[in-house]
Formats: sequence, structure tokens, C-alpha cells
Amino acid sequence: MKIFRDPVHDIIRFDKETDKLILDLIETKEMQRLRYIKQLGFSSITYPGAEHSRFSHSLGTAYLAKRIVARLAEQRGIQEKRWLKEITDNYYLLLCSALLHDIGHAPFSHAFENVTGIKHEKWTLQIINNPDTEVNQVLESHRKGFAKEVADVIARVHPCQTVVKLISSQLDVDRFDYLLRDSLMTGAGYGRFDLEWMLHTITIGEVDGVPEVGLDFDKGLSIAEDFVMARYYMYKHVYFHKTTRGVEIIARKILERVKGLLLDNEKIQCPDCLEELLKKPESASQSLYLELNDSILWYWFHVWTKSHDDYLRELCNRIVNRKLLKSADLSRFGPKELISIFWLMKEEGARLGGNYADYIEIDTPSTSSYSDPYLFKRSRADGEKEVKTVEGNNAYDNMEDAKEASEYIFLFDKQKNPHDLARASTIINAIREQKLEQQRLYFPVELHKYLCTILEKRR
Amino acid sequence: MKIFRDPVHDIIRFDKETDKLILDLIETKEMQRLRYIKQLGFSSITYPGAEHSRFSHSLGTAYLAKRIVARLAEQRGIQEKRWLKEITDNYYLLLCSALLHDIGHAPFSHAFENVTGIKHEKWTLQIINNPDTEVNQVLESHRKGFAKEVADVIARVHPCQTVVKLISSQLDVDRFDYLLRDSLMTGAGYGRFDLEWMLHTITIGEVDGVPEVGLDFDKGLSIAEDFVMARYYMYKHVYFHKTTRGVEIIARKILERVKGLLLDNEKIQCPDCLEELLKKPESASQSLYLELNDSILWYWFHVWTKSHDDYLRELCNRIVNRKLLKSADLSRFGPKELISIFWLMKEEGARLGGNYADYIEIDTPSTSSYSDPYLFKRSRADGEKEVKTVEGNNAYDNMEDAKEASEYIFLFDKQKNPHDLARASTIINAIREQKLEQQRLYFPVELHKYLCTILEKRR
Amino acid sequence: MKIFRDPVHDIIRFDKETDKLILDLIETKEMQRLRYIKQLGFSSITYPGAEHSRFSHSLGTAYLAKRIVARLAEQRGIQEKRWLKEITDNYYLLLCSALLHDIGHAPFSHAFENVTGIKHEKWTLQIINNPDTEVNQVLESHRKGFAKEVADVIARVHPCQTVVKLISSQLDVDRFDYLLRDSLMTGAGYGRFDLEWMLHTITIGEVDGVPEVGLDFDKGLSIAEDFVMARYYMYKHVYFHKTTRGVEIIARKILERVKGLLLDNEKIQCPDCLEELLKKPESASQSLYLELNDSILWYWFHVWTKSHDDYLRELCNRIVNRKLLKSADLSRFGPKELISIFWLMKEEGARLGGNYADYIEIDTPSTSSYSDPYLFKRSRADGEKEVKTVEGNNAYDNMEDAKEASEYIFLFDKQKNPHDLARASTIINAIREQKLEQQRLYFPVELHKYLCTILEKRR
Amino acid sequence: MKIFRDPVHDIIRFDKETDKLILDLIETKEMQRLRYIKQLGFSSITYPGAEHSRFSHSLGTAYLAKRIVARLAEQRGIQEKRWLKEITDNYYLLLCSALLHDIGHAPFSHAFENVTGIKHEKWTLQIINNPDTEVNQVLESHRKGFAKEVADVIARVHPCQTVVKLISSQLDVDRFDYLLRDSLMTGAGYGRFDLEWMLHTITIGEVDGVPEVGLDFDKGLSIAEDFVMARYYMYKHVYFHKTTRGVEIIARKILERVKGLLLDNEKIQCPDCLEELLKKPESASQSLYLELNDSILWYWFHVWTKSHDDYLRELCNRIVNRKLLKSADLSRFGPKELISIFWLMKEEGARLGGNYADYIEIDTPSTSSYSDPYLFKRSRADGEKEVKTVEGNNAYDNMEDAKEASEYIFLFDKQKNPHDLARASTIINAIREQKLEQQRLYFPVELHKYLCTILEKRR
Repeated sequence: MKIFRDPVHDIIRFDKETDKLILDLIETKEMQRLRYIKQLGFSSITYPGAEHSRFSHSLGTAYLAKRIVARLAEQRGIQEKRWLKEITDNYYLLLCSALLHDIGHAPFSHAFENVTGIKHEKWTLQIINNPDTEVNQVLESHRKGFAKEVADVIARVHPCQTVVKLISSQLDVDRFDYLLRDSLMTGAGYGRFDLEWMLHTITIGEVDGVPEVGLDFDKGLSIAEDFVMARYYMYKHVYFHKTTRGVEIIARKILERVKGLLLDNEKIQCPDCLEELLKKPESASQSLYLELNDSILWYWFHVWTKSHDDYLRELCNRIVNRKLLKSADLSRFGPKELISIFWLMKEEGARLGGNYADYIEIDTPSTSSYSDPYLFKRSRADGEKEVKTVEGNNAYDNMEDAKEASEYIFLFDKQKNPHDLARASTIINAIREQKLEQQRLYFPVELHKYLCTILEKRR
Repeated sequence: MKIFRDPVHDIIRFDKETDKLILDLIETKEMQRLRYIKQLGFSSITYPGAEHSRFSHSLGTAYLAKRIVARLAEQRGIQEKRWLKEITDNYYLLLCSALLHDIGHAPFSHAFENVTGIKHEKWTLQIINNPDTEVNQVLESHRKGFAKEVADVIARVHPCQTVVKLISSQLDVDRFDYLLRDSLMTGAGYGRFDLEWMLHTITIGEVDGVPEVGLDFDKGLSIAEDFVMARYYMYKHVYFHKTTRGVEIIARKILERVKGLLLDNEKIQCPDCLEELLKKPESASQSLYLELNDSILWYWFHVWTKSHDDYLRELCNRIVNRKLLKSADLSRFGPKELISIFWLMKEEGARLGGNYADYIEIDTPSTSSYSDPYLFKRSRADGEKEVKTVEGNNAYDNMEDAKEASEYIFLFDKQKNPHDLARASTIINAIREQKLEQQRLYFPVELHKYLCTILEKRR
Repeated sequence: MKIFRDPVHDIIRFDKETDKLILDLIETKEMQRLRYIKQLGFSSITYPGAEHSRFSHSLGTAYLAKRIVARLAEQRGIQEKRWLKEITDNYYLLLCSALLHDIGHAPFSHAFENVTGIKHEKWTLQIINNPDTEVNQVLESHRKGFAKEVADVIARVHPCQTVVKLISSQLDVDRFDYLLRDSLMTGAGYGRFDLEWMLHTITIGEVDGVPEVGLDFDKGLSIAEDFVMARYYMYKHVYFHKTTRGVEIIARKILERVKGLLLDNEKIQCPDCLEELLKKPESASQSLYLELNDSILWYWFHVWTKSHDDYLRELCNRIVNRKLLKSADLSRFGPKELISIFWLMKEEGARLGGNYADYIEIDTPSTSSYSDPYLFKRSRADGEKEVKTVEGNNAYDNMEDAKEASEYIFLFDKQKNPHDLARASTIINAIREQKLEQQRLYFPVELHKYLCTILEKRR
Repeated sequence: MKIFRDPVHDIIRFDKETDKLILDLIETKEMQRLRYIKQLGFSSITYPGAEHSRFSHSLGTAYLAKRIVARLAEQRGIQEKRWLKEITDNYYLLLCSALLHDIGHAPFSHAFENVTGIKHEKWTLQIINNPDTEVNQVLESHRKGFAKEVADVIARVHPCQTVVKLISSQLDVDRFDYLLRDSLMTGAGYGRFDLEWMLHTITIGEVDGVPEVGLDFDKGLSIAEDFVMARYYMYKHVYFHKTTRGVEIIARKILERVKGLLLDNEKIQCPDCLEELLKKPESASQSLYLELNDSILWYWFHVWTKSHDDYLRELCNRIVNRKLLKSADLSRFGPKELISIFWLMKEEGARLGGNYADYIEIDTPSTSSYSDPYLFKRSRADGEKEVKTVEGNNAYDNMEDAKEASEYIFLFDKQKNPHDLARASTIINAIREQKLEQQRLYFPVELHKYLCTILEKRR
């Protein structure tokens, strides 16, 4: 037995023989890199305890996958035994996918994706499929073609749908782990849910002939509600925290500025891995990408506090010495009014000179990467249409959209009929009504008074 | 109220008015630097959860100081009310000292201290006393001369002995916080003790006319035992973990190698802050020292994996890709035999060529920085003699020794007579008998077989 | 310091001098009686851990009152300092009321109230006001007329509204303690809420010139939602558990049968305290009432398993040997249909002979004692009308209704304006939509098949 | 799946098919009786939370047995696979024995055993072996002769030694559960140990050809120490608490007085089950014994507060209204001096008249039922001699002694050699030196001054 002690799961246990494949993957360079990337990026600035790495989250996710297999194997009621068999037959596929699902993350992922225009999911798939990585080699040593299979699971295009759903759906091991871990580490009381009861009531059912991870209707309704609520609160209070988002904005601006300087062939010190990625992200080599981690960025943020470029220097001073932007909640304004305020601030910033204008930003943290029908109000109709209109040339391009399409939580009744949680629970419906989307305006403290004057008039 | 959520203490609360001084200190550059220094250095390699920073530990320590003041104020039985008055009169001195006690830590403290020969305590005092630091300025703005007072408390030479003892003694807020925090974050079951009961039973008494932090005899004996046991287990299993110590050895060798190359004027890329510290530690500027943090070192460890210096490159590859040294527990051998084995290994290493010989190391993690009469068997007589013979020119030089001199845990009976825990508790005495010192030999895996041959003969 | 160790609050601390009044009350006969009355009546049959007594709940409630006073005293923002002063001036009134609020409970309270027609609240007030009780004497020794004041607080008619609201409102110390305690002891994951955050965000505000306990709007919205949800789940899964309710029905029937036999002057063994209460509840002596506890009833349930009265014997055998009634959830039926099913079952029961017909019962656990605008959908209008039509001759008769009238949770914004949680939170509104009321039919297992036949037809 | 929610183990899960036997046993009358017997007797008077029943402890014990089987099955290193096979082959034997091990307990066991002279273990075996009990019938329905097998395991005479050791040894499921449960319920911080790590490191080894439950040497030494310490603290602070022991003394005196009155044919009201047991315990019918529970005794304690017998009335008033005896710790006196003090007090009591003299008692809570080589200093030699001299005619008579004989904790090293914990750990040795035995004198408060005078002279 190889064990890892863990603040969330206590003892994470993998068998040295039967789980050797997992243990070998953990030892690869690419997995070890995740030790140097914080799970929550800049959240530790707001929540000092939240220093945990993507590595520990990945271990926890793989361990939960293992626990779920054990748990399902005890159940008699699983509809059509073949789904259960499918899972146990694909034990390694499940655990490897769980372990590797985040392997493509860059440091400060959202800022980075924004600037390069490449999602971490794409890197994840490339890293797993690239025969030069240790991860690929370990996977292929298990079975030829196995790396591709793991990548397909993560991309949600693998035919083994039970495994796909356990890795990414509304009730997946990824979410189970990150909610509990982020909640414990931030110290935020929200986000905790009764994992043991969740594992007790989890089951595999069938919806339109397709297997789905769901919960027992009678036992699972309350935990399902509680789980969705836990996520809701974590988004509201932790993931969308105004300070954290403000730091992310600065980080993005730093990367954008460096990119700009590089593209303009300005003289600027920059490590190779970053330079290539910022200049030509599409063709950047993966081995350089894998050199990226939090330390490198923080190191260079510190170095650039002495840069000769004024704007870059100022930005880096802001992030390193926490001279952050102020923010104002403008959720009550309509889009037109919001834009008008934004431009007024921009003008005033320009008038003041310096880089003031550059700091004005609207942030609406509900968009894109966080969309989830249980947290954000979206009619299913819209969701479905969207999926249908997307016509990717490459299966992987559809990944995000495919994810949307199956974002239901199913409750299976005694006759194994599926019920959508949102219909069974008025509470869950209500969460969507309760506005989570926020509109914030970020600006330098010097413009605070001016904003007050503007807002005064719009009361 | 300004609050911090914390995985250990849940809600850490400082009053925006009465605790403003503390909140201002937290915002200083020097305190913020601690966010980028891990509390347990390399332990996260062994315990993936242990990524917590010295910043969160410092917050927790200051908060515990605040709680103890509140707790003591409720007590009626405190011998000679003047001690209680002394504490409440020196509330800010206590909290500031608690917050700043670790401010001088370098990244990977032990390795760094080893190579530079300068203890972090010395840096702590300099940073607090240096009028150029923000910390100093905030302290002085409270009261002229206050920075020196705080430094004196940390150096244990301040006349206000109650505050000194609460900051550093066997029952100090530093230990309370780090044991609970390190235990939670590593996930190691050991190290937890009943903090609420400890705070319930803590008291101030008098020993030979000097105030001492102690516990109520009847209520406190068991918790005192439990607390010493908790530390014992944390040292045994976490702080002295063979893998962690092995990584520390590599880190030290890297710093030594870089130092050697610099002193030999070899061409080597190295950031200024590190260069100055390694070349002339005694005269290194404090502002450069304050640029050091974990990110910088990790960044350069990564950079040097491509160094043209073979040994440095190999060392950095070892630490980055976890090609660590093997270790063997040789505690059963006497000093003479141990040295003989060590030299045989060195010879074999030399014979193999490369840098093999350089990796052979004896590690006895009981020494120096960890000495503690409750964990290591030392007659008090020895301890006292040692203190007496030290004749520092500077009060601060005595710091470590002074600490030794008062390392008792006192239990106060109903008549307020003090009892030394070690006499009251045979269990505590027994801990010292139970060998904590270990002798380990570290060596490259290639020499494993050879060591087996040597040991075979010495059965 | 007198301390009690407690599974919920860890260390419950009362000062031997300043809290002497509380400690003296704890020692009274009437408080000690609560040790022998289980907080959750028959719930331990469903949740074997739930054996905790009303005594520990009362201690916990008084301790929370103490903590809230300390917490509020730290707050600067409390609107109109006079409310804060009112609370600190009435510290003893608050703590005594908290401690004594449940002193009038009979064993298996609901069953008992049902049969005697006297609510436990009435007994509570009588016990406190009766000069023969130790509780009254201790209170009066504090200050003449103090017992009446405590009774008035519990009856919600005391002019000191801050204290009244802390003792009974939507955010009272009673609920805080029982949710946490019942949740821990049953082992049900539901019911836990973040007490520390609740205490952090609790405040006193003003609504229409009247003080109200509420929460800070920004910090408190989520915890308010979570708290209401916690209660909702505890009602749904624990307090309304079908097995527990089934046992309560049997217990009620036993008491009714004994009452019937007594009134018919049938020969039946019965202890004095029970006999008097069942025969003439209104005039029953309080000293006899205070002899009642769980042990007495359980003892007699066992004795009556050998009664010569067939029905009583059978009922007692059912409860002692857990030959409980079956239940069916008929929530989907309208009132008319439900009654019709009920009568069909009654007829069939009568046809079968024995006591079968007597066991048929409809249970709708949403009614009366549990009504709460946050859990049960009721228009405020109805609630208010109800209050207005009641015209009690005695202030205490209004108790229950008065309670209804102020059952809001207020969130106070920065300008100290109150907001009703139900308007601020769509989730809370949704809880009321989500049917908590249930309609269950209880019947003997022998009638199960017949019920199936009936239901078959009504599909 | 049938589940029980539990404050200690969260979800206790038994399979409705494979664990049907266990579930059937739980439903028997004899198991259900344990719901009405508190695990810790009178401890709830000292620790108000400790109301938990022997029923929940029995469930927890059976569940731990189940978990250990699952845990051992994962282990590869178990010496001689046959021991592992033995356990899995005897799964039902193990779980049934774990569930039923306490079935013979009377209410307030120690007081009761004292007065009747019959140990609860004897009743346990009789109940299991008696064909009239439901327990016996369920066991026999599993396999003819199975009841006897279960009884033999509990009596430690069954040939399947692995199962015997898991049920009763230094590392048995009984202790694991009661330490955790009693610790949680009392709220005492002591008594907690890291169960998950314990289960991780537990193993089966061989000592002199006999299987023994032990721990892995490297991983288990610290947890073994911690576990023994946990028990030590629970005995010291909870099980031997002076108040609890004082109540036990009164309870014993009540039973003795009733017994005396009955034997003298005095007229006294007394339920049949108690009367027969007190008058002729050896021939008392088991069905009457099984009617006993806490409720009955508490009921009669209340009834007898109005007895016409002065002494009985006074005793019952003391226990019901907590007019308990005072106690003094006389551990510092030698046996001769102790006896002399005892007699002086008796004389003074007699002089005062009333029943004063009858209340004087010496209590040395280290004796008999609690003996344990890890908690009480006893040379093994003595222990062994004792065992040898016992020559029971009936295998079951030896039960207690046989238990003594195997009270080691074994640590198995890599070569599977056993090491006695007491030799491997100086801490454990030290616990025995640290006096746990206490000598207390109990007496009525009226004699307090007189005792002070006596002790004054003996300073």
C-alpha cells in the first residue's frame, strides 16, 4: 500500500500492485509539475489558507473515483448490471482520467487562457496524447492506445459513458473533491456537503438508453440540493470574490503587457517558456508549456517590479505589494447604462494621464468557464440549441459544449425512472433566480470620487 | 472588525480600531513576503497538503495571543494580580511580537541558515529594528522605541517576562499554532491536542519571583503530557521525515555549490539577492534578503537544471524531478562504526566517479535547532552549565541559549507552588528515554548494494 | 469557573461568582428533572444516537446566550446603543430565561400534550411562578419579582424585547442549540450550520421602533439561508420521520387508553402522578407533574405489557417490542379522497375485529406545534388575522400566537434598514413551495394488502 | 442496504442480504433491551452528554468488525494467509460476537454485579445459549450450534483465535468503539485516537504459533502508544471520576438495602425482576433478568424516596436529588493508615447517629474489573501465576483470567517477528509507573470537618 495523508480524505490509499499504474503516473514529471500550481490561483491573497496545489486535488479526485467504484460495487439496485460492469471493467480508465483531468493547467489558469486564447483542456489532451511525455509513456505501457482513451474520456467523447460521466458531469469526482478541499483550505464555512451520504446514495441509472450518474430519489434529494447550494455559495463567496478577481485582472494585464512588448519587439527580459507562449501560443512547444508554474510567474512579477517599462513596472508593483484596484458592484444597472459609466470612467482616466484609463475594467464573473445550468439561469432550450449549432471539425473542440449538454442532476426513483433535480426541487430552481451574475467595475482608487459623482446622478 | 477565515482557527478577528496596529503590520511588505514562504519548507513533497505559508502561521499566532489575554482576564486565581496587569498593559507588545516572530525566515530556512551561517532569528531582529522597513515604521508610529521593545521580546531580553514567556517558552503561542496547523495540513493524525482545554487551564504563576506561563496542576497534567507527546510525534513523523530531510540535503548542496562557484568567480547565472547573500552573508543588505522567497529559489532550481556546471545541474535535476537520495537508518551503530561506514561509502563513491562521493551524508536530525529538554534527553545540569559559559557580547547572541534556560513546563498547584512537569509525569520522562535522535546515512541509489554488503558484515 | 464538557460546545463555562445564579438554578430539582427527559422523545428508536436529554440542551442554550452577549458587546455598529445596553443590563434575565425555557416539558411531550390538552409552555410558566418550586426560590432570591420577569420573557410579554427576541424568534439561542445538538446526536448530516459565522454576523437592529435580532445583510444572507435550510432538512428527515411519528402515535394511544380506563373507573395500575394528570389535567398538582419523566413512562409501558386490558396490553407490546404500525405516504391525495381511504381502512379494520380499526390514523406532521412561516407556506395575512382574532383573557394564552407574529428573519443593511429574508432570498421562498407537509396513513401491517388494493384503483 | 446514522461512525451499513443475520439479531428483544441501558451508567451525572446506550455501542462494535475484515482483506503481508482466511471464513461469527458481546449487561452494571455477585459476562453467555431467547433462535437458524460458537468466542474459548482476539484483546473492536464513543459523548478531549490510521496499520501476525491482532512496527508504534494513552486518560478522568464513583456507591447501597429488607422479609415494594435477582441471584430466571433496564431502576429509586424505611428513603433521596457523598483523595496514605482513618470516621459517624456511619466507604477504583497490564503496574509473573492457579470446572469461569493472559499489544516488524509494545515503548512502561490507582474516602458532608482534623494531625 502506498498512502498519502491528506487534510480532506485523511488516508489516500493506492495498492502498490493493483494500482501501480496510478502510482507510476503520480511520479511523472507532468503530474509533479502540478505541485507548483495552486488550485485556487490568487485566492490565497483573500483566504490565506488557500495555498493548496492542483497536485493534491488530483490525488483526491483519483481517490474518490476509487471509492465510488467500491461503493457502486456494493449496490444491488443498479439498473442494468452492465453499467456496473462497464465501470469495473474500466477501472484504470476511470482512475487515470480522474488523476490526469487537470494536467494541462497553466499557473493562474484563467488569466493565462485569456491572454493566449487556449484553454487548459486543450493542453490536457495534448499532454496526454503526446508520445514525448512521461504520462503518455506510462499510459501506453499499460496498453497500446490507452493514452488516447484517457484523453477521450476527459474530452467526453469516449464511448464508455459511465466513466465519462463520473469524470465530468454535475455529480463528478472533480467537483466532489474541489468543493471539499477549497472549503476546508479557505476556511469558508460554505462548500461543505456530506460526502459520505453522497457516496451512499450515488448510483448509476439510465436516461434515454444512456447511463447517467445520479442519486437515489428518496435518499438523495436533500443532499443534491445541499450540494448545489454548496457550489453556489463557493462561487458567490470564494471563486467570484472581488479581491481575487481584482488580482486576476492585474495578472492578465501583466501578461498582456508583456505580450505586447514582445510582439512590438521591445527589449524585455522574459523566460523562454513564457515568451514563446505569449508570442505564438498556437505553435508553442508543449515542453516549454510544461515548464510553466506559479513560481516562475511570481519570480518574474518580482523581477518586473524593476522593469524599465513604466506600465509593466507599475502593474507588477501592484500585484506584489497588493496595491490592488478598487471595485464597485454595479449589478443594478442595465447593460447600456453600465457601458456609459465605463466610458465616462475611461475618459476621466485618460484625462488624469498615466495608465489610469488602462485600469478601468468591467468584470462579470458569471460568464463562460463557469456556466452551469444549476447556478446560472438558462433555459434548457437555449442550452440545447447552442449545442446543436456547434459543428466542430475536431471532436475535442466540442468538449465544453458537450459538457453543457448533459448538465442535469438525475434522481432515480424506485422504478429507476430519472427525474431532473431542477423539476423535483423548487429550491434548485430558486437558486437560478437568485442572481449570481455580478457586474463589477474595477478602477484605480484615485478615480473613486469621480465614480461616486457619476453614481450619485443615477440614483 | 477585520476577519480572516482560517482552516485552523476558523474566524480570526481583529478590531479595526483597537487592533489597528496589528492590521497595519499585516499590510507591510515584510509581512506579506511571508505569504511566499512555506511554513514547512520541503514537507509538502512528503505530505502534499502541507503547502501552508508562514503568513498564515503568523496570523494564527497573533490571534492565539489575543485569545490568551482574553482567557487570562477571566481568571480569578492568577497569582499576584500584577502579572495579569503586566500582560494587559502590554497587549500590543504581545500581539506584535507574536505576529512578527518569524519575519526573518528565509525560504527553506534550515538549508539556508546552514549555508550562510546566519540564523533567521538574527534577521528577524534586524528587520524589526531597521528604520527602513515598513514594519519598523508601523511599530514606531505606535510609540517611539516600540520596535526595539518588540525585538527585545522576541530576543527574550525584554524585562516584561510574562510577554516573553507567552511568545517563547514551552507553552507559547508559536507552538500552539504550528502544531495544530502542521498537523491539519499534513493530514498526519499526530500533533493535535485539545487547544480549548489548554486555554482553559493555562495560567500565570511565579517561580523564584519570576512569572511563568504554566497550567493548573489538577486540570493541566494530562493536557501537558498530551501536548508534549503531540510535539514528539510531529518531530518523529513529520519534521524529521527521512524524505523531507533528504530534500533539504539536496537543497543545501545546491546552495553550497552555487556559493562555491560564485566564490571561485565561475560564470553562473544567479539573482542578485542570492548572490550577495551567498558570497558575503554577514554584510548582505537586508533589502536584498527581503527579496528572497520560495518562488525565487524554485525558479532558479528549475533554471539550473540546464546549468553548464555538471554537479549543479545534476543536483537541480534531482530536486526538481525528485530523483532523491536513498537513506538508511543507522541509529543502532555507535559513533565510531558510523564514521567508518560513512568513509567506506565515500571511497566507493569516489571509485564510481561522477559526483557520487559528494552525495554521501550523515544526518542526525536531533541536533541544534531542535533541542528541547522535553523531547531530547538532556540533564538539566548540562543545560544550565551551557548557558552560564556562553558570554555573548550582544544580548541577542544569547537568544537561543536563553531559550534553553527556561524550558520547563510548570504546573501550579492550589497553593500556587510550581511543579516541573518532568518530575510530576513519568510519561514525560519516558519520552526522553525513547530515542528520538536518529542517525541516517543518505546516499545515491547506485550505492545501495554496496551499503548492504557493508552492513551485512556488521550484523 | 464551573465547567461542563459538552459534545456540541466543548467547554461550557460559567463563572462561580458572576454566574452563581445560573449555577444555583442548574442544581434545582426542577432543572435536574430534565436529565431524565430525552430532547427528541422517541427519535432514538430511529436514530440510536439521539439519547440526549433536555438538560444538556438547556445548558447549551444558556451558554449560547452568554456567548451572544459577549459577541454583541464587541460590535460597534449596533443601532442605537440602548439596545446593547438593554441586553447587558438584563444579562441575568436572558441567561435564566434561556436555561429555563423548556422546564415544563413532559416526557414525550407531543403525545402528552395531546392527551392532556395542556401545552408544556403553560407548565413552564407555572413552575417558574410557583413559590413552592426551587427554581422560583432561587430566582426570587436574586431579586423580588424576578421569577415573574423570567416567565414573562418566556411568554414573550416582557417589555425588554431584545431579551425576548434572543430567547424566542427565528434567530434564537434555543434553535441554534437544538439544531446543532440534534444533528450531531442523530448523526444526520443535515442541520449543521456555521455557528461561528452566525455569531459573527448576528446583530441587533430596529424595525418600526422595536429591537430585533437580525444579521448583517452582506455577511449574513448566505448563513441565513443555510440556517433555514438546516431546519427544513431536520424537520423533513428527523423530526417528521415516519417511524418516530409512528411510535408517537402508539404512545398517545396508550395514554388515551389509560385515561379512558381511569375515567371509566376500570381497575388499572397506574402511578399517582399519571393518574391525576390524565383524569383531571386542569387541576393536577404541579408537584405531581414534576414527578413525570421518561423512566416512569417506560417503566409503566413495560408493566402494562402484562395488563389484563387487551388493547392496552397490545399497545404496550407494540411499543416495547417495536411491533410498530406501517405507514403509507398519501400526500398526493386531496382531502376528500384521503378521508375516503381512511374510512375504507377503518371499515376493513372493524371487519377483521380485534383492535385493528383503532390503529388506523392519519398523520399530517405539518400542523400546529411546528408552524413556521419559513418552513410552511402560509400567507402572512392569514397569520396576522389569526393573531387578531385571538382574545385571551390571560397574557400567556397568547404566547403561541404572539410568537407567530414576529417570525421574520431580518437582514440589516449598512444603513441599518431591515430586509425580510424571504424577500431578499428566492431560495427561502422556494423552501415554502417545496412541500414539507406530508399526509401519512398509519395502519397495522395486516391491512397492508387491502390498502394496496384501494390505492391500485385510484392510480 | 440497511443503514444507521451514528455520531461516531457516521453511516453504519449492513447489507440486507449478506448481513441479514446481523440485522435479524439487531431486531431481537434482547438486543433492543440495550437501548434502555446507558453505556456509562451514572457518568451522565458528571458529563451531561454521556447518555448514549449500550445499543449504539454494540452497533458500532459490529460495524468496526466489518470494517476490519474489509481492511485486512486488502493486505498482502498478512503472515500465513490462513489467518486471513480464517477471519473471512468466520465473518458471521466475528460480527455476531461483536454485536452481542455486551448483551448480558444489567443497568448500572458494576453496582449490580457487586450486589448479586454475578458478572455480566455470565449472563451474556447464558442469554446466547438459552434456546428461549430470540437471539439464540436467530443464531441457530443460521447454523445449528452457532449460538454456542458465538458464546465461545465471547468466552474466549473458541478455537478460532483470530476472531477471539478481534473481539477481546488489547486491540479489539470493543475498545475501539467505546473509547471513541465515550470520548465524543462526554465531550472529554481525551480518548480520541486516530481510528483510520489504526485500521490502516492493524494486521494479523503469529506469536508462538498462535494468531494475534497487532500493528505494523514502523507505522504502528506511535498509534499504539497514543491508543494506550487515550485509554489511560479516559480511566483517569471519566471512568474513575470521583462524582460518578460516588453515585455508584449510593446505587450499590440502595440495592444492598433492598436486598437486606427482602431477605429479612420486611415489607417493601419491589418489582418481581429485581426481587428475585436480589434474593436468589444464582437461580434467578433469565427472562426476569432481561426485564431489567435503567428505567426500572430509576423509577424505583424515585418511588423509594417515599419508602417507610428511613435508610432506603434517605439513600434514594440522595441519588435522585443529588445530595451526594463528599470524597477525599487519600492516595498518599499507606494501607494501615488508611484503615485507621476509615475506622475513626466510622466511629464518629456512629457517634452522630442516623445512618452516618453507613456512608463511610473506601473506594480504590483500580481493582478487579479494570485490571489491564498497560494501565496498572503488574508484573507479568503475577498475572501468569494467577491464571495458572485458577482451575475452573467450567470453561466460562476462566473467562476473565484468560483475558488477562493475552493482554499484550504486539508490533510486527518486517520479518513478522512480534515485539511487545511495553518493551518497545518506554512511554508505555511509564504509564504504569504513573499511579492510576487512587484511594478515596467517601463520607457525608457532615463529617468533613472531622476528617480535616484527622488529616491535620497526619501531615
